[in-house]
Amino acid sequence: MKKSPVITTPKGFSFSVTEAAIKKPGKKDIALIFSEVESSIAGTFTTNAVKAAPVQLCMRKIRTGKGQAIVVNSGNANACTGKEGMKDAQAIISAVSQPLGISHTLTYICSTGVIGTPMPMKRIIPAIGPLTGGLGNASFEDIAKAIMTTDTFPKVASRSLRIGGKQGVIAGICKGAGMIAPNMATMLCFILTDMAVEKKTLQAALRNSVRKSFNRITIDGDMSTNDTALMMANGILGNKPLTKKSPAFPSFQKALDDLTYELSKLIVKDGEGATKLVEVIVRNVKNEGDAEKAALAIANSSLVKTAIYGNDANWGRIMAAAGYSKANFSPDKADIFFNKIQVVKKGVMNNKDKEATEEMKGKELKITVDLHAGKASAKVLTCDLTEDYIRINAEYRT
Amino acid sequence: MKKSPVITTPKGFSFSVTEAAIKKPGKKDIALIFSEVESSIAGTFTTNAVKAAPVQLCMRKIRTGKGQAIVVNSGNANACTGKEGMKDAQAIISAVSQPLGISHTLTYICSTGVIGTPMPMKRIIPAIGPLTGGLGNASFEDIAKAIMTTDTFPKVASRSLRIGGKQGVIAGICKGAGMIAPNMATMLCFILTDMAVEKKTLQAALRNSVRKSFNRITIDGDMSTNDTALMMANGILGNKPLTKKSPAFPSFQKALDDLTYELSKLIVKDGEGATKLVEVIVRNVKNEGDAEKAALAIANSSLVKTAIYGNDANWGRIMAAAGYSKANFSPDKADIFFNKIQVVKKGVMNNKDKEATEEMKGKELKITVDLHAGKASAKVLTCDLTEDYIRINAEYRT
Repeated sequence: MKKSPVITTPKGFSFSVTEAAIKKPGKKDIALIFSEVESSIAGTFTTNAVKAAPVQLCMRKIRTGKGQAIVVNSGNANACTGKEGMKDAQAIISAVSQPLGISHTLTYICSTGVIGTPMPMKRIIPAIGPLTGGLGNASFEDIAKAIMTTDTFPKVASRSLRIGGKQGVIAGICKGAGMIAPNMATMLCFILTDMAVEKKTLQAALRNSVRKSFNRITIDGDMSTNDTALMMANGILGNKPLTKKSPAFPSFQKALDDLTYELSKLIVKDGEGATKLVEVIVRNVKNEGDAEKAALAIANSSLVKTAIYGNDANWGRIMAAAGYSKANFSPDKADIFFNKIQVVKKGVMNNKDKEATEEMKGKELKITVDLHAGKASAKVLTCDLTEDYIRINAEYRT
Repeated sequence: MKKSPVITTPKGFSFSVTEAAIKKPGKKDIALIFSEVESSIAGTFTTNAVKAAPVQLCMRKIRTGKGQAIVVNSGNANACTGKEGMKDAQAIISAVSQPLGISHTLTYICSTGVIGTPMPMKRIIPAIGPLTGGLGNASFEDIAKAIMTTDTFPKVASRSLRIGGKQGVIAGICKGAGMIAPNMATMLCFILTDMAVEKKTLQAALRNSVRKSFNRITIDGDMSTNDTALMMANGILGNKPLTKKSPAFPSFQKALDDLTYELSKLIVKDGEGATKLVEVIVRNVKNEGDAEKAALAIANSSLVKTAIYGNDANWGRIMAAAGYSKANFSPDKADIFFNKIQVVKKGVMNNKDKEATEEMKGKELKITVDLHAGKASAKVLTCDLTEDYIRINAEYRT
């Protein structure tokens, strides 16, 4: 397994993007991913009780484990749109499936953008013809561009993997930027592979990767109504379908873990207004649940995030956040490091704040909290909180 | 019961403030509250696992239900200061109790300010003489000024109450501004009354008031290591000590509820960088726990708070926050109001965003979410999230 220098696309998939002027004209805002054969498909979805219509639809469809097409739009989330929103999503699925000559049960739909505004169906339906007709004219990266909302760059990654003497590819794209919080698959992510993977194995592998990547990043702690990660495996490579017992499965899982972690990192790097990428590692904790609670509380704290922005090694805020996380630990055993500089020793200051401040001036920072209470650990990615986050979100709809 | 136009101080208490140059010179940063007689005392404290030394001490002391003096400093939180911090807090208590001629068990201590820096005992101890010697030279309001950190104005309130033919007074002060989150008594609050109140009754009444006031405000969702609310009742008024069965108890509780709510409101109004005071009311919910969860999630959401700052009636973010709050409700029954303007009807938009935007331009805003699922409700106070919050907190220690 090696990281590809440029994105390699798995065989048997074609792509199309076009403009439906969903929010405003001049942007490719609707996209189509199509596999030439029926594929295994897996998905993870937001745990928000308020789920957008397309999320509700996909959650029902995914039970079959079978899919062939994904239609996705930006500019409108089709969330909080009631029964009309559900009808609209179904109408788009039908309009896409027919010219593709596939059953509507094989077509999935995702939306991202403003909540609460009805889908502009008068502009979307006429765009479906050019969309399906244009298959093959776009790249996977073009899809990544079409689903951007407040993202400032497209997010793509791929891995290749030798399996049964053949070179398989896993490629993924995602969008993020705001309303990013854990306990879900974050925002939109599409992962494609030409390997054959048995459907239950695909679902388990995706869930496993998402748990340690998209579920462990936070930008603003707000959980979206639309978060969806879908993964299609079309089997064009011709390998014997992977199951959990296949000798190649561990390297497949590892490649998928790596890919989703890379995509997660890209999302946090492009967090709204962010100037720094921060890894929060909480280690030597009794159990992983406590490690995760503490890491998430620190990563979500507005006071920690503003201090990082201000290059202030204000570790007291880190202690306070760990303290209210409900993780089980003794404050007087805690050590805290900014990169390799130890600022806290056994719960009290270590007189290294000045050195830590220097460390903070880089674009990336690693905060390690060692609780000396066990062997479990958790890592959460976050970013700093800046005036630009406020500006972007105070003006989002205007 | 009536709200006093200017603050009235209960009888039998005297006050002193002086300068110990704890963080920087030129500010009265240490204060003393003294009752001429031993009093009933009650307290509520942060639930953060990382508790400052003075909090740990007060939690032990409060079990006696008896107190006579409170010494409090700003500029240093005496948190994450280890065994030395505990010794320092005890040394201050001893130094204060001796000249007052009272047992150290009757003296309480509170600290607020930077976390993790040892207390500057060399400057504090010499200030104790002038502090105890100066009793009577300051007002309760001067104490409110001495405990300010990033607060921009002192927070005081009082209520008077007829009891057994006599006029009793309850007066309170507090400080807030940042690291304000629920599930605790917020930051520092001192409430004094000249009424006689049986100690268990006082504790229950305070806990009850705090639950619906300080525990339902949020500025940044960060919970402090030092939050403490203390209430002393010295009984100088000569009334028969109030118990829960006293005919006057309900009006006493009501006055205390009113007072703590007014103080809570002042804290949120003075939230770091805040330009707007926002009441989030979630009503008609199955149970109060669910109402509180939903109201807190909305009030804590960075996306909701930035939208309020930008005068954007972005109700989709409110729906999303209620959705991830884990409160039990049907999104398709939800109504949302900005003041009296209904923006959401049965979970979908009501085409009133323009009118709602106009409502948002005031200094105060009421957001009501009606879930049509029961009879319980909860109200949480919050503020908007602005660039100034970032600036204040990125530069706090520098």
